[in-house]
Amino acid sequence: MGRVTTRVPRTRVDVERGAVVARPDTVAVEEPLELRVGGRPVTTTMRTPGDDFDLALGHLLTEGMLAAAADVATMMHCTDVGPDGSPTFNVVEAALAPGVELLRPARERTETMSSACGVCGAASLDAVRTVSRFDVGADPVSLDGTVLAGLPDLLRTRQPAFERTGGVHAAGLATAAGELLVVREDVGRHNAVDKVVGACARERPLPLSGTVLVVSARASFELVQKAAVAGVPALVAVGAPTSLAVELAVASGLTLAAFTRGRSFSLYSRPDRVRTPG
Amino acid sequence: MGRVTTRVPRTRVDVERGAVVARPDTVAVEEPLELRVGGRPVTTTMRTPGDDFDLALGHLLTEGMLAAAADVATMMHCTDVGPDGSPTFNVVEAALAPGVELLRPARERTETMSSACGVCGAASLDAVRTVSRFDVGADPVSLDGTVLAGLPDLLRTRQPAFERTGGVHAAGLATAAGELLVVREDVGRHNAVDKVVGACARERPLPLSGTVLVVSARASFELVQKAAVAGVPALVAVGAPTSLAVELAVASGLTLAAFTRGRSFSLYSRPDRVRTPG
Repeated sequence: MGRVTTRVPRTRVDVERGAVVARPDTVAVEEPLELRVGGRPVTTTMRTPGDDFDLALGHLLTEGMLAAAADVATMMHCTDVGPDGSPTFNVVEAALAPGVELLRPARERTETMSSACGVCGAASLDAVRTVSRFDVGADPVSLDGTVLAGLPDLLRTRQPAFERTGGVHAAGLATAAGELLVVREDVGRHNAVDKVVGACARERPLPLSGTVLVVSARASFELVQKAAVAGVPALVAVGAPTSLAVELAVASGLTLAAFTRGRSFSLYSRPDRVRTPG
Repeated sequence: MGRVTTRVPRTRVDVERGAVVARPDTVAVEEPLELRVGGRPVTTTMRTPGDDFDLALGHLLTEGMLAAAADVATMMHCTDVGPDGSPTFNVVEAALAPGVELLRPARERTETMSSACGVCGAASLDAVRTVSRFDVGADPVSLDGTVLAGLPDLLRTRQPAFERTGGVHAAGLATAAGELLVVREDVGRHNAVDKVVGACARERPLPLSGTVLVVSARASFELVQKAAVAGVPALVAVGAPTSLAVELAVASGLTLAAFTRGRSFSLYSRPDRVRTPG
């Protein structure tokens, strides 16, 4: 199976001290993964190997293509070998359960095979939004501000690949009480979220009510969308939010916290759910 | 035209001091842009509005779909209006010059309409690589280590949207002497690079020999690829490199510097081009 990190030659240069040292470095592995459903390619993503079935399932769920883990009958790695004679493990083939079809085509196909107007002549949010089957705004979750502020630091204690490489994002799903249920790392932040949702969806059906998604990255539109589609009522990001992330969070009733740093954070939607001291 | 930043309501919470303040925040604008060539959708990207024609041209060039700026006859924004009656400016329509065709189909189409083996049974790099028409390894550029180390700080002085939002990436093209020719910001790091290449390709034909691409982000496979396809012989990243980024840089003969922080950096390929003190 794929490695999460690998060693590469590296020359470290310090121009101030005039030091040049040749010393191997540990970097995050990035490899393509092609996802096929019923033999048809759905997407190719550049990912860190490992938890590929969680990634595949999570992607199908958070992109609104499937509704439940049980919609997938089997998943297997394609066992074709690469030029060196060993299996590449870079293709996952999913077979759907009897009677199940993809709820919507892969995003790429929609974009390139349709001549419909797409993002033209529609409000931006409506043009790109995958409407969630769940009303995350109706989730009665109540969040403690101190717990919420501490989630990125807690996530940070469970990022071994980041520790070694400085080059991978992480995502985690936490309870409202601040217990991290699942943490995953990946060179791609979308992949890290998909791996988390895929892993959780095997344990309990969607929606992932009452939970908080924590990400080491900025809060983009797509991360808010993945949370809403999985039925997660709150997203906590270390970095900044984008305009469309805020717009979707407000429209969905999802609690969005960003710039979350140890003792403080900024709330961009549904602050009524967050209990703060004083 | 689109705005680069916008104001949103925000509640700032400091749990240690028990402070809760409602104060608007400035966030980076993220909007979809659909790129069409000859009426056919090529891709949709989530981008920060502004320099859309540079983004469109740069994307077509760095994805290996076109060879030169002159291959595009005209570009225009679709003037359809959104629900509020004002133009969305979220579609760019490019018309190719007479006799010009896309050199390769859009990536998405390849992935989803072909039943060929894709990433299976090939080395990862070969499966996803867009081979550059230019031999960046043969570029005789010579780089000064001190100049190289200072490029991210120089870039940082020209990131007004980052200054206001903390939420956008930047890319710049510099001469070997350390002069920044073009800087662009975008919520997406690929978009920032595409905007830079598009802007430069209008001024001089590819390859962009003798230059250095500087990015505020990590060095992923795709950024190295975009540099190589544009004929840029060196990439300087603030963050970490991935395994496939290193692999492609080595295979292409592109100089890859990462973890570039003021006075030091790490070279992962072609260190012979970098003059260091001592």
